[in-house]
Amino acid sequence: MSEKTPTQQVSEWLAALGAALERGDAEGAAALFGDDSYWRDLVAFTWNITTAEGNARVRQMIEQAVIPMKPSGWQLEGEACEAGGVTEGWIRFETDVARGYGHVRLIDGKAWTLLTTMTELKGYEERRGPTRDRGVEHGVHPGRKTWLEQRRQEEAELGFLTQPYVVIVGGGQGGIALGARLRRLNVPTIILEKNARPGDNWRKRYKSLCLHDPVWYDHLPYLPFPEHWPVFCPKDKIADWLEMYTKVMELNFWGSTECKRAHYNNAKQEWVVEVVRHGKRMTLRPKQLVIATGSLGVPNMPSVPGMERFTGDLHHSSQHPGPDGYQGKRAVVIGSSTSAHDICAALWEEGADVTMVQSSATLVVRSDTLMERVFGPLYSEAALKAGITTERADLTIASRPYRTLPALQIPLYAEIKRRDADLYARLEKAGFQLTFGEDESGLGVMGLRRGGGFYIDVGASDLIADGRIKLKSRVRVERIEERSIVFTDGSALPADLIVFATGYGSMNGWVAQLISQEVADKVGKCWGLGSDTRYDPGPWEGELRNLWKPTHQEALWFHGGNLYMARLYSLFLALQLKARMEGIPTPVYGLGPVHHMA
Amino acid sequence: MSEKTPTQQVSEWLAALGAALERGDAEGAAALFGDDSYWRDLVAFTWNITTAEGNARVRQMIEQAVIPMKPSGWQLEGEACEAGGVTEGWIRFETDVARGYGHVRLIDGKAWTLLTTMTELKGYEERRGPTRDRGVEHGVHPGRKTWLEQRRQEEAELGFLTQPYVVIVGGGQGGIALGARLRRLNVPTIILEKNARPGDNWRKRYKSLCLHDPVWYDHLPYLPFPEHWPVFCPKDKIADWLEMYTKVMELNFWGSTECKRAHYNNAKQEWVVEVVRHGKRMTLRPKQLVIATGSLGVPNMPSVPGMERFTGDLHHSSQHPGPDGYQGKRAVVIGSSTSAHDICAALWEEGADVTMVQSSATLVVRSDTLMERVFGPLYSEAALKAGITTERADLTIASRPYRTLPALQIPLYAEIKRRDADLYARLEKAGFQLTFGEDESGLGVMGLRRGGGFYIDVGASDLIADGRIKLKSRVRVERIEERSIVFTDGSALPADLIVFATGYGSMNGWVAQLISQEVADKVGKCWGLGSDTRYDPGPWEGELRNLWKPTHQEALWFHGGNLYMARLYSLFLALQLKARMEGIPTPVYGLGPVHHMA
Repeated sequence: MSEKTPTQQVSEWLAALGAALERGDAEGAAALFGDDSYWRDLVAFTWNITTAEGNARVRQMIEQAVIPMKPSGWQLEGEACEAGGVTEGWIRFETDVARGYGHVRLIDGKAWTLLTTMTELKGYEERRGPTRDRGVEHGVHPGRKTWLEQRRQEEAELGFLTQPYVVIVGGGQGGIALGARLRRLNVPTIILEKNARPGDNWRKRYKSLCLHDPVWYDHLPYLPFPEHWPVFCPKDKIADWLEMYTKVMELNFWGSTECKRAHYNNAKQEWVVEVVRHGKRMTLRPKQLVIATGSLGVPNMPSVPGMERFTGDLHHSSQHPGPDGYQGKRAVVIGSSTSAHDICAALWEEGADVTMVQSSATLVVRSDTLMERVFGPLYSEAALKAGITTERADLTIASRPYRTLPALQIPLYAEIKRRDADLYARLEKAGFQLTFGEDESGLGVMGLRRGGGFYIDVGASDLIADGRIKLKSRVRVERIEERSIVFTDGSALPADLIVFATGYGSMNGWVAQLISQEVADKVGKCWGLGSDTRYDPGPWEGELRNLWKPTHQEALWFHGGNLYMARLYSLFLALQLKARMEGIPTPVYGLGPVHHMA
Repeated sequence: MSEKTPTQQVSEWLAALGAALERGDAEGAAALFGDDSYWRDLVAFTWNITTAEGNARVRQMIEQAVIPMKPSGWQLEGEACEAGGVTEGWIRFETDVARGYGHVRLIDGKAWTLLTTMTELKGYEERRGPTRDRGVEHGVHPGRKTWLEQRRQEEAELGFLTQPYVVIVGGGQGGIALGARLRRLNVPTIILEKNARPGDNWRKRYKSLCLHDPVWYDHLPYLPFPEHWPVFCPKDKIADWLEMYTKVMELNFWGSTECKRAHYNNAKQEWVVEVVRHGKRMTLRPKQLVIATGSLGVPNMPSVPGMERFTGDLHHSSQHPGPDGYQGKRAVVIGSSTSAHDICAALWEEGADVTMVQSSATLVVRSDTLMERVFGPLYSEAALKAGITTERADLTIASRPYRTLPALQIPLYAEIKRRDADLYARLEKAGFQLTFGEDESGLGVMGLRRGGGFYIDVGASDLIADGRIKLKSRVRVERIEERSIVFTDGSALPADLIVFATGYGSMNGWVAQLISQEVADKVGKCWGLGSDTRYDPGPWEGELRNLWKPTHQEALWFHGGNLYMARLYSLFLALQLKARMEGIPTPVYGLGPVHHMA
């Protein structure tokens, strides 16, 4: 075996897998996997987003989901390679109804990880390049409609004379990316957004806000940012891009439209969605409903005794307008994650007297360090130069089972701790409570588990470390007075501005508001992996709860996450919706029980 | 010599050229060129758009323009190749102040064609990829302005508190593409457009209008159309793209702004440009003025006796709204080029009674034929697949001296004539006057010589061939009656609609209107090559008159052409403007005399 090239190894392994699956031999196929192995499937076989962990579960998936989908055409794409005992390669395959792409890692000739993803449905391929639309129909067609007339007709009729197949609630980058995918698959879709214009969800945030993820990580589907786009995009610039994208991708974007209620009509198998559009009530009846209001759901605003008597400005970070007008004022920001740091730094720059109140430990990583050690290998100029396209980078991340991430990340963050030891020492000296996650597995894993609790340092940490932003730590807010805030340790701070940078509740809080508590409970908590850590109770689920996959409410879906997730997973969600629209059977494998309500 | 590989040949030739130039040996350098040879330089050496033809002129250019710019670093990029006795390769080089890229063709070891283009000015390189802006400045900066604040400040101040370096008159695709190039080079620029929104120049055209050039030929700089963009883009879709491009490229686009007058203040070396913006008069004082109102200048509306008494609708094609409302009406369209055919076909589809009046021969080529035989090798899916990028395709065209084009194109159009003989026979049978150019050199050359006189057939020709669009040929309009039009042969046609699809005057018609007849005469005719054909009188100029290069009016420039030209030549014009702004010496070589006023 050691004489075979990596390419030969992977090719032979694929041939063996293909042969076993073709003859319906689940046992034989499972024998090609190690005891400690993972098969992660994104739609292609399971019509779900699911990871089978361990040989027994892999075998079960093979038997119940893979073999029935009649896979074929397993082949290596390009060359395989080997490093550190792991042989890996990119693979193609087909099923009865679809084409797929994936990735495999072999150790000692057996699969450690296998990723299979659906790329397109046969007969419903996106038209691009050689198959792109011609635009003008040559020849002459009496009564033909121009492009503009067709768009105007659609705008006039969809939602009125005809109903969309999908309604997406939420027109941020998630809803917009998904809308673009559905457009390319010819699925009639309306995106509902309470703000007036695409991008407003960014425009309305505090003025210093920028993306903290670098540009190479942030592209939308189909239309990447140009080469001169800044590394960290200011909020208004991303807002303009989203607005432009929505227009040129021909999305049916209903701004100034608030979603009031929705319920599922089981008999008719459709949703009844009551909206108020530009002040006018109307009803939409889509077959499928996608909640894309943000992986950060309803703002979490604590109820503190005395809030109503405060005479200064008081609001949640989601309502914070920015530092203008607060020069010389006393600002107290409750919280210590991203929003809190950004808001404190901006207030300090404006000349306010700023105190951050930290009640629990926060993960801090320097942006430059993250860029170099975490993003660098996959999302950077160097990565592009090495031939790692956005698609390859996305699927590389997707190929790493969630269960394996802590083991990968713990050494990395140990190194980060050493590398930036100076900053961390200075922060701790100032009283800041640091964490690198309960198991030291760092930012990415923390994001998956709880969606927050971290700060990518773009400058605020220095201000805290040297006391220019004052810090109160290890206390909670007890009550609020007319012009001050009193803490659990008895101390008090005068304040002209109080910002609660206290995060957001679960996405299914929207479901409770929009649909019903019953449906919210039926569907359960969104996000998190079941890691049995403080904010992410077990049991282990192996995938993010409820995102981009069937839920326990018929025809209800969730879409969210950062720009990487919006880009990558929008494809898989769109394919699931398209299949249902076209009447392609979608037998879902692995729809697990709901363990937590919220 | 025949044993050397193409790569060796070109490398050695480049080395010899570099050595001769370095020692100032113009004779030695010229000896490397054939008697029949061409050196086309786009800015790099001549600070002009110019072609030296024949060994003597090449030697003169070497002596007077190339050697003084201190070229160095001549090298082949990639491999050279050989076909049909011609060895060619892509080359890089530098000068004292710039970097360049080009192409060479050798026959029997000597240069037949050499193209040198400037790609960037040293010290003023566009920031992209690894050098892109970071966006957010890490660290904290008291009083920092956000991106939005900076944009708003610029919008408030440029043209008011501070003056732009460049004003571009005309916000079509030409002005917009140039504006984007100048933005990337940090040249403060304002684009003036009389219509309200970017793209309106397209929106306002007749409703069936689409681009007749295929998508691969049409990309704007920096942000190519996505892969699913239609081959032939409908007018409103290109309009939306231009509007969004203008926004995301952060251009200072002043819509609803009419340019009233401009004059050059020699003492202050600046233009005084009087505009009316949203109804309000104001004055701009740029150093440089670019006329980008369209390679098709002022509409050419003939004066026909009796026009004023016509009781139906009468207008130039540029004012034609489209066919709506003309069902069952009698339409007479004067002209037989692109607009005439498009308008006739749309009217016919609507159910009007349509007659085209042709007074001179027209070049007709089927769109599919053009796609396959003309665009296909350079601008198509197949070309992309063969590794021909847009940039390579653009420079391939640029590398072919205009003098050599007829010889290349005549056999091609002879083949096209044979291939589509059936259509041409049917057209001639219907009375249509066909031409392939005075020397049968076809559409591209005709476009360069006269900017019109052709139709890329997307369906109207069939309607003419079988009489569904009626044709009156070989007549002119003599007079117009109240509800009819009378021809020089005495015949008459009743009419409810008369459209003069009679083309446009020279670009310098705008100059006469905006600046003065004196300056218009000083600058002379725009466009055309001096081919000594009917619409393009000699003497031979070798380049398009006045486009993208210094003119005889200090600080006055012209930018125009189709989307390919807007894309490619905007770079060279932008570099010339940037160099002047930065005080880099720009000794212009080859600014020839004006031979024609208009």
